[in-house]
Amino acid sequence: MDVNKEFFSNITSRERAIFEGAISMGALFHQFVGTPVNNQTKKSLEDAMRNSLNLQPAIEDVEVNIDFTRLEDAMSEFDYTSLTGDMLDVKIHTKVDDVKAVIRIKFIEELNYPLMYVEDIKD
Amino acid sequence: MDVNKEFFSNITSRERAIFEGAISMGALFHQFVGTPVNNQTKKSLEDAMRNSLNLQPAIEDVEVNIDFTRLEDAMSEFDYTSLTGDMLDVKIHTKVDDVKAVIRIKFIEELNYPLMYVEDIKD
Amino acid sequence: MDVNKEFFSNITSRERAIFEGAISMGALFHQFVGTPVNNQTKKSLEDAMRNSLNLQPAIEDVEVNIDFTRLEDAMSEFDYTSLTGDMLDVKIHTKVDDVKAVIRIKFIEELNYPLMYVEDIKD
Amino acid sequence: MDVNKEFFSNITSRERAIFEGAISMGALFHQFVGTPVNNQTKKSLEDAMRNSLNLQPAIEDVEVNIDFTRLEDAMSEFDYTSLTGDMLDVKIHTKVDDVKAVIRIKFIEELNYPLMYVEDIKD
Repeated sequence: MDVNKEFFSNITSRERAIFEGAISMGALFHQFVGTPVNNQTKKSLEDAMRNSLNLQPAIEDVEVNIDFTRLEDAMSEFDYTSLTGDMLDVKIHTKVDDVKAVIRIKFIEELNYPLMYVEDIKD
Repeated sequence: MDVNKEFFSNITSRERAIFEGAISMGALFHQFVGTPVNNQTKKSLEDAMRNSLNLQPAIEDVEVNIDFTRLEDAMSEFDYTSLTGDMLDVKIHTKVDDVKAVIRIKFIEELNYPLMYVEDIKD
Repeated sequence: MDVNKEFFSNITSRERAIFEGAISMGALFHQFVGTPVNNQTKKSLEDAMRNSLNLQPAIEDVEVNIDFTRLEDAMSEFDYTSLTGDMLDVKIHTKVDDVKAVIRIKFIEELNYPLMYVEDIKD
Repeated sequence: MDVNKEFFSNITSRERAIFEGAISMGALFHQFVGTPVNNQTKKSLEDAMRNSLNLQPAIEDVEVNIDFTRLEDAMSEFDYTSLTGDMLDVKIHTKVDDVKAVIRIKFIEELNYPLMYVEDIKD
């Protein structure tokens, strides 16, 4: 079965680059939010997030940064916290044919919300 | 802050309809996979999945069906199973300006994989 | 196979009541934290949480309350938020032989932490 | 606030060792099931699971093994799969005062179910 021909011939390469990056961003957020984390384990969690999302279709690279400042504000009596979307600063790079896109999540103060958007797209 | 102007002026309405639906599909899969479920609780879980995803930007409707057949195959000694992606048949309807899109997840036998794709898009 | 004889003869009924309730409480937290929710969908999410956890071994009843006050504080520009552990007030009732236990999660201000503990146990 | 006195004086050290291990096992399962994984990323995911669960109260050590055999059976056309409970072989070691417990999850063929149980407890 030719997956691309069968299921993706109705959208452009540009649209596919956006589609695959957006799926992976939604996946990353809802898979990992809630995970116990602190300064000592931040790197290990960032690695697992990057490596697991890298497996998905069209993903070229994933840059994950769990934001230190907010992490410390949220720290409990027990010296760790649960990962929230507000702590995430992530760029997912996708490539479909000649199109390259960067999907971003970043906490936007004015919105009180970790916004997902297309930061860059080139074709 | 005008979110659309600030963050989404670099993509078309059609691309935005795909983007928002794809995020919500990735979210749905990775939020709910693993949930204990059986025939008695299927309806309640489908409702919660639909209602929670409906809250996200640009989502018009969410149709969730947890597939009975696979559910019974997977049933354990304890009369329930954990929700897997293979059981999901979901359509997420998005609307951005005049564009309407349907993002779908469905298990494809030939791929041994629950595929996410753009089932329909109209502008 | 006699599961109880094979795997649980090394602990008392009281210990088993605590064990099964604790598993389900850890499960509930990490399954549902991150789910989009607001006042309109709160009831539906509470129902799905109760129904799905009720399926697990030794669970007699699950009382779920997503705390309104904190929910409104956390509300974003888009009129919904992501479920966090701080919003959870949950009692899981277990029964093993003649022992009944109540496992609780509740946000404790002094700890800045949603604490899980054995609220009540009777044998 | 003395958390132990305030919230845990109604259970024994042995019961607390079981309680904390069971919470962390429920947490581990429901946090990470659904994560994309293959042979290349297995180690990174195991590390993140171990490190994040190690942060929780009373946890001494966490041994995580994602079972290779089942992983390969489940591999999709796209050379990765979603983590399921059936692939998990995990031991969580807890210590409360002089009590040491090992909580285990392992797939049991006869039950068609990844069973959680107290593998060992010493006081």
